[in-house]
Amino acid sequence: MTTQELVGQIYKKQSFLCIGLDVDLHKMPKHLLDAKDPIFEFNKAIIDATHHLAVAYKPNTAFYEAYGIKGWQSLQKTIQYLNSNYPDIFTIADAKRGDIGNTSTMYAKAFFEDMEFDSVTVAPYMGKDSVEPFLAFKNKHTILLALTSNQGAFDFQTKEVEGKELYKQVLETSIAYKNSENLMYVVGATKAEYLSDIRKIVPNSFLLVPGVGAQGGNLKEVCKYGLNTQVGLLINSSRGIIYASNDADFAKSAASKALELQEEMKQILEEIK
Amino acid sequence: MTTQELVGQIYKKQSFLCIGLDVDLHKMPKHLLDAKDPIFEFNKAIIDATHHLAVAYKPNTAFYEAYGIKGWQSLQKTIQYLNSNYPDIFTIADAKRGDIGNTSTMYAKAFFEDMEFDSVTVAPYMGKDSVEPFLAFKNKHTILLALTSNQGAFDFQTKEVEGKELYKQVLETSIAYKNSENLMYVVGATKAEYLSDIRKIVPNSFLLVPGVGAQGGNLKEVCKYGLNTQVGLLINSSRGIIYASNDADFAKSAASKALELQEEMKQILEEIK
Repeated sequence: MTTQELVGQIYKKQSFLCIGLDVDLHKMPKHLLDAKDPIFEFNKAIIDATHHLAVAYKPNTAFYEAYGIKGWQSLQKTIQYLNSNYPDIFTIADAKRGDIGNTSTMYAKAFFEDMEFDSVTVAPYMGKDSVEPFLAFKNKHTILLALTSNQGAFDFQTKEVEGKELYKQVLETSIAYKNSENLMYVVGATKAEYLSDIRKIVPNSFLLVPGVGAQGGNLKEVCKYGLNTQVGLLINSSRGIIYASNDADFAKSAASKALELQEEMKQILEEIK
Repeated sequence: MTTQELVGQIYKKQSFLCIGLDVDLHKMPKHLLDAKDPIFEFNKAIIDATHHLAVAYKPNTAFYEAYGIKGWQSLQKTIQYLNSNYPDIFTIADAKRGDIGNTSTMYAKAFFEDMEFDSVTVAPYMGKDSVEPFLAFKNKHTILLALTSNQGAFDFQTKEVEGKELYKQVLETSIAYKNSENLMYVVGATKAEYLSDIRKIVPNSFLLVPGVGAQGGNLKEVCKYGLNTQVGLLINSSRGIIYASNDADFAKSAASKALELQEEMKQILEEIK
């Protein structure tokens, strides 16, 4: 999917919501545990109930890998289901990969070719030649970790590197990477005030913002500092939506929570028209 | 496996060699491609031919993920084969994972519980709460990226953060993490001279050193600066060993290359006795 197509979907659905599919067998409705593939059945129900309210889905690969081959199969079924039934959805493999050149190429193949995700999250620590192999794939997007939403972000990301915080160095350095037009960035919503500085460095890039909801970020604050002329934001909510209820009506409850966010987003989009 | 058991194996085998199982269908002997699981058959042959010369094996997960479910199955078969037949081998999942707390726990479960690896490589960018979930597993080892062997290492890792290079900040900060006795570090062999500084910060930790061979590192140089009283080094070679030949005798050729390194290591261990 191209960035323009993503922007088109955002205006069409009046939503820049991304739903995180971080599925934990211990948290899902008990009645699904008897299914052949409970994780896929859970995802399918959530997707069917919310696809008109969200523009993106983001399975975090950790939650699938933890269940071994079975989990990997659930992930593949989920992405295939999305691609077959909702081709207008932007898909994100939240995998936080990154390795030396030829190895990053293998990861890129795994997510872009084998599973046909539109995008993958990548960690910047190993630098240019660990990121560029992902950027080489046309109409695929590499979402680089800049400022994450967890407490550990203060260990290194906000430390000054040659007079500038590390996450800003990551943003500035990455702009010079080959095919950097395929870059997006992860920016945690728990630090909305940082967004205005970030927008000075990457005014046109899409930002994937986790941490609205369970991690305490505020949607209005994030939009105030983060929106650009093409919206430029994907706001992720995982637990706040998918675990809204764990009764038989879990998908309906998830849709209600998604609708709340979508309505807030619609209002914000109308205000900036 | 405990660190003491690993040290015991090193002295017993007179080797601190780790063999990287980065298996690429395009590089392996053609006659194996007809097998039901070529990647596993390749690994099995390499392991059977070299297990007496190496103390550790390190599959890089990217090379398995690139082949989807089939690749993941090959990885599981490989680790099961190692654990069943060579329980004295130290196993490393070179996965370079790292995410917020509950998500890192899922990755730890994937590699330590579901697949029963002894260790996993982890990226430090997200800080303390992305690393500690791995450290919570007893007798399992978390190998944190400090200074990698690729060119991109100079993008951020060697930049000064509050008066000290980022990789040194990573080393110093991580020492204060809970259960930090379960930490080892990745340190690229292409920068052997850095090792004496690193040893000042982590004198007792094991260092996993990639980049000897294909990436140009020199074994003697690395040992000069990196050895400690318990050896404290695992030297990885991947392509230089496993692709020594791609004829029918590939495993024998791999063993010859591994033997060369093991003999060099034996001599070094004798010199420091």
